[in-house]
Amino acid sequence: MTVAPQAVSARRTVRVDLGERSYDILIGPGLIAEAAREIASRLKGRRMAVITDENVGARYLAPLVDSLKAAGIETASLTLPAGEKTKSFEHLITACDTILAARIERNDAVIALGGGVIGDLTGFAAGIARRGSRFIQIPTSLLAQVDSSVGGKTGINSRHGKNLIGVFHQPDLVLADTDVLDTLSPREFRAGYAEVAKYGLIDKPDFFAWLEKNWQAVFAGGAARIEAIAVSCQAKADVVAADERENGRRALLNLGHTFGHALEAATDYDGSRLVHGEAVAIGMVLAHQFSARMNLASPDAATRVEAHLKAVGLPTTIADIPGPALPTARLMEAIAQDKKVKSGQLTFILTRDIGQSFIADDVPASEVERFLTEKAVP
Amino acid sequence: MTVAPQAVSARRTVRVDLGERSYDILIGPGLIAEAAREIASRLKGRRMAVITDENVGARYLAPLVDSLKAAGIETASLTLPAGEKTKSFEHLITACDTILAARIERNDAVIALGGGVIGDLTGFAAGIARRGSRFIQIPTSLLAQVDSSVGGKTGINSRHGKNLIGVFHQPDLVLADTDVLDTLSPREFRAGYAEVAKYGLIDKPDFFAWLEKNWQAVFAGGAARIEAIAVSCQAKADVVAADERENGRRALLNLGHTFGHALEAATDYDGSRLVHGEAVAIGMVLAHQFSARMNLASPDAATRVEAHLKAVGLPTTIADIPGPALPTARLMEAIAQDKKVKSGQLTFILTRDIGQSFIADDVPASEVERFLTEKAVP
Repeated sequence: MTVAPQAVSARRTVRVDLGERSYDILIGPGLIAEAAREIASRLKGRRMAVITDENVGARYLAPLVDSLKAAGIETASLTLPAGEKTKSFEHLITACDTILAARIERNDAVIALGGGVIGDLTGFAAGIARRGSRFIQIPTSLLAQVDSSVGGKTGINSRHGKNLIGVFHQPDLVLADTDVLDTLSPREFRAGYAEVAKYGLIDKPDFFAWLEKNWQAVFAGGAARIEAIAVSCQAKADVVAADERENGRRALLNLGHTFGHALEAATDYDGSRLVHGEAVAIGMVLAHQFSARMNLASPDAATRVEAHLKAVGLPTTIADIPGPALPTARLMEAIAQDKKVKSGQLTFILTRDIGQSFIADDVPASEVERFLTEKAVP
Repeated sequence: MTVAPQAVSARRTVRVDLGERSYDILIGPGLIAEAAREIASRLKGRRMAVITDENVGARYLAPLVDSLKAAGIETASLTLPAGEKTKSFEHLITACDTILAARIERNDAVIALGGGVIGDLTGFAAGIARRGSRFIQIPTSLLAQVDSSVGGKTGINSRHGKNLIGVFHQPDLVLADTDVLDTLSPREFRAGYAEVAKYGLIDKPDFFAWLEKNWQAVFAGGAARIEAIAVSCQAKADVVAADERENGRRALLNLGHTFGHALEAATDYDGSRLVHGEAVAIGMVLAHQFSARMNLASPDAATRVEAHLKAVGLPTTIADIPGPALPTARLMEAIAQDKKVKSGQLTFILTRDIGQSFIADDVPASEVERFLTEKAVP
């Protein structure tokens, strides 16, 4: 892998290669303003339903709708509350109703304008309205740009766990406008950065080393940021193209996520305590530490991961989570109900070194429990 | 096509050929009693969630659960109200919750035990629980055995129309126990028979002629009934294998359905006035009459279709529907919101003769409206 941030052009295109379901991810500045042109050049339909949340909508809905209107595209829109709790059946029903009321036909599309929550919910609604409607992602958080808007996983949460209800539904186009990231809070940007670092830790040790040196430039914006997003999207696109439905290799994208989801469940998805990217950051450190504990990796890898994530300002230990302590029993319960379970065996993404992760499908629950007991009660 | 009812063996198997999503439909007597054996020989999982309705459950749930238990398969079950109104988000949520609470894993399965309503709802729940769980259909109505249990279309209704929310999710196995049909009311059996006749009308004129001669034997049970179900399932399997996602040829299966769905919507899905198969029967007669009106077919074909469906006791005209007259405006509204719409043009399945149906995607709405105005107000 070569990374040459000084030489990248302003806009990058990453192709997700899925046969007749292939699509482009455009990455760069000013894409919301140019959305109508990009959409109209690819889709014949002249009706769109835009779904957004209160925060993003206040800033970007009117400009998007205006530019679509100027291009002769009629829109209906729905603005939902911001936050993880929006990924519920209640809001899914409203989203479906908006799509059906707008009479979105086969060449028209549903547009998600927002972060991961809006993307997941809207993609699910598009996936089930008329058994599958066209779908465009305009992700407005770093997390959504590098992760949730790419790959077709959609869904809502259940009382049994996160993302347990959903479908695979690929978008027809992803527009990642890097300008909008300037308006994210530092905490939100850091949370998305955890997923950027993840791609290095999965199988790109050079990219991780580049991030260790250049993370400040990525945070500052400009070419380094666009490069980091493009590398991340390409990494995800490669994995998704090889294994769309997560029967194998795609599970690597869950590095840090089994622990991370358990932490999110145990904090009741309370974003004031922990957001998804922060949970993944802690989860990745735990996955590296657990790998060392299982004698699969040197403890140095875990130390290096922890040091980098701490340097950018991310939480790296369970003790970093504000609020009451998290009982290990609650974490284990969430892990057992996680999607990556096969006939009672626990599946984790473990690692042999930086950028050398692998799928371990025979992890003894007792080892995980002992490890978490130590980590959860420091 | 050859039909030799005197020579069929007691059990038939129809293979739906969809690559790695291929599956068998077993058709014959005693299959509920033998369900556990058939399931255990195909699936490794040892947990199943069975979803049924009050009517079917009262008769068949206990024997099914007992036979699964005897085969070492643990079951959770959910019994929903009977009737079309069960195809709602409310019951979908309950079904998903039952599946997740039962911790159905990747080798386990969700079982639909019931007619089309239970099959559509359960298939949808299986399709979205963990983004797709294994699924077994045990259809207990003739309609479900010959139509809705085959082909992977699942869904619920919306206030905007029937089946507007759903996914394509193929079952892993279909067990069509022909003994259970003996307990159907004559009205229910006739309603299912409308879909059997449909396969003849789509592209099997010999089969339609055979039904004209042998329908009484089909109604009586035994070899002729099994043969009619097997021919129907094979016909549907062939169409589905050629066009799983309904981009083309599969639309032929909608013969009679655009008119039929409009009639169901206009009677508010009130089963006391009109059930789905009855709506399809009237819809097929209307499609043949409309084809004659458009000078595509001889009026003789419509006369023959009407005579046969009337002979078996099905309604064949809008005036046959009990209750208040149906306003044409209401029917047209339902037709416009139907799934088979493309940029405002109406798509209908029309025909040139018995067994010579085709997809017409440029039907003028004004012609349909004039035709329905005459038919709706006799």
